[in-house]
Amino acid sequence: MIPDALTQGQFDTVYNFLSLVIAAQLFTALFLTFGLSRILPRYRLAITVAIVVCGIAAYHYFRIFDSFKAAFVSDSVGGVDGYTAAVGESFNEGYRYVDWLLTVPLLLLELIAILALARKVQSGLIVRLMVAAGLMIILGYPGEISGDNGVRGLFGLLSTIPFAYILFVLFRQLSKSLATQPVSVRGTLSRLRWLLLLSWGVYPIAYLLPLLNIAGSDAWVAKQVGYSVADIVAKAIYALIIFYVARMKSYDDDPEFARVELSTEDAPPILAR
Amino acid sequence: MIPDALTQGQFDTVYNFLSLVIAAQLFTALFLTFGLSRILPRYRLAITVAIVVCGIAAYHYFRIFDSFKAAFVSDSVGGVDGYTAAVGESFNEGYRYVDWLLTVPLLLLELIAILALARKVQSGLIVRLMVAAGLMIILGYPGEISGDNGVRGLFGLLSTIPFAYILFVLFRQLSKSLATQPVSVRGTLSRLRWLLLLSWGVYPIAYLLPLLNIAGSDAWVAKQVGYSVADIVAKAIYALIIFYVARMKSYDDDPEFARVELSTEDAPPILAR
Repeated sequence: MIPDALTQGQFDTVYNFLSLVIAAQLFTALFLTFGLSRILPRYRLAITVAIVVCGIAAYHYFRIFDSFKAAFVSDSVGGVDGYTAAVGESFNEGYRYVDWLLTVPLLLLELIAILALARKVQSGLIVRLMVAAGLMIILGYPGEISGDNGVRGLFGLLSTIPFAYILFVLFRQLSKSLATQPVSVRGTLSRLRWLLLLSWGVYPIAYLLPLLNIAGSDAWVAKQVGYSVADIVAKAIYALIIFYVARMKSYDDDPEFARVELSTEDAPPILAR
Repeated sequence: MIPDALTQGQFDTVYNFLSLVIAAQLFTALFLTFGLSRILPRYRLAITVAIVVCGIAAYHYFRIFDSFKAAFVSDSVGGVDGYTAAVGESFNEGYRYVDWLLTVPLLLLELIAILALARKVQSGLIVRLMVAAGLMIILGYPGEISGDNGVRGLFGLLSTIPFAYILFVLFRQLSKSLATQPVSVRGTLSRLRWLLLLSWGVYPIAYLLPLLNIAGSDAWVAKQVGYSVADIVAKAIYALIIFYVARMKSYDDDPEFARVELSTEDAPPILAR
């Protein structure tokens, strides 16, 4: 539930985190757009998907930012500045869910594309993961907008089943693929598995915060910060790591490309590995 | 603390400096975007990072500009035009800190990438500098938003430790790398060390201005101007110098590229060195 009032500090915290997410997504998308020609053509579609994911997230965060600003009006009670819920304007949590409905399947696609699993495994896997992602998000929403903790808990639980399935499948596939990856990216991909668990793990924690009987507005602020941080890690930072993997794989696939792309000082250690 | 009132001259000064920063960052980013194909591929990622840094700064200065305009309303007291702090709208210093949180690590990356240190040194260095940059900014913020000079001084002091560490490491690395750089850029890189100290040095001075017992609004205006000038030098001018270094190194690496890029009048002295 959206709180009736926020202190100045709480309002500023949410405000600055929402703006941080806009900047992070927008400029990650820009960086990757310029970076496309720094990797081999075979990896450019995966990075294009990453650009789209960050772009979609930036769009929704502009909306979330505006919705947040409109939903609270400044006031001063007993000389203390603060904010109260605006009459007739309500913060729209729906934007996050529309965003996730579009970006989560794309994030899965991005990861699988860069792993370049055998084509047979790939298409079956993608279908199953996308169905699970859709279910996860659709089942989460009724709990998110409910003011009742029982409803929130129930839908949270239902949503966790496809969530756990996705993470289990991704973690296993990433682990299985490690052996077939170039040595130069094995360490990064191995750490990426844990980043995936860590960043995705923040979403259910943020979702469940309102159940912990923390004072309403504190839990709500922590939830907004949690979703914001998780979106930065799971979309922007994740995309930058995938770009790094694509770049290393490009060097590995094509020594001539590596020669052109790397300065003479860089070249020996990377090419010599 | 944000002043209760500004004179017309103070308001105009801040207003015009904020607008200057927007123009400087936005069009440096535009220049570098078009300039990417004027350097060898191996230096383009570093310049892409510079484009992103200037873009992020432009985004935040648009926000700072709007926040400043909303935070002060025009009035006329005793026939003298001026501005008073708006009720319910407060100038958000948070934008600067969100901006620095994103851009300072990228600035460090930019410099290290163009120096092209041996890859082994590079990754360890980057991690240590980024951690220090994060600490520096996070420790500075509580003092920045505090109205208490003791709190400001304490957090300013704490923040100065990682700040000094970063500058020490960068200065030493730049100095050490000079010997391995092409003769054509040695002078520029040597001067860049001093520009780095000069431009970064403005931040702590601006930060500490409110402690000097200057009348509140004068100190605040000087701080805004100081941060603005420092952001132009540390991001836009710094990026242009790095672009110049990348261009000189490109000529040095590839005489054929130099022949295509340089007009006949330019060519002899540069190629003949």
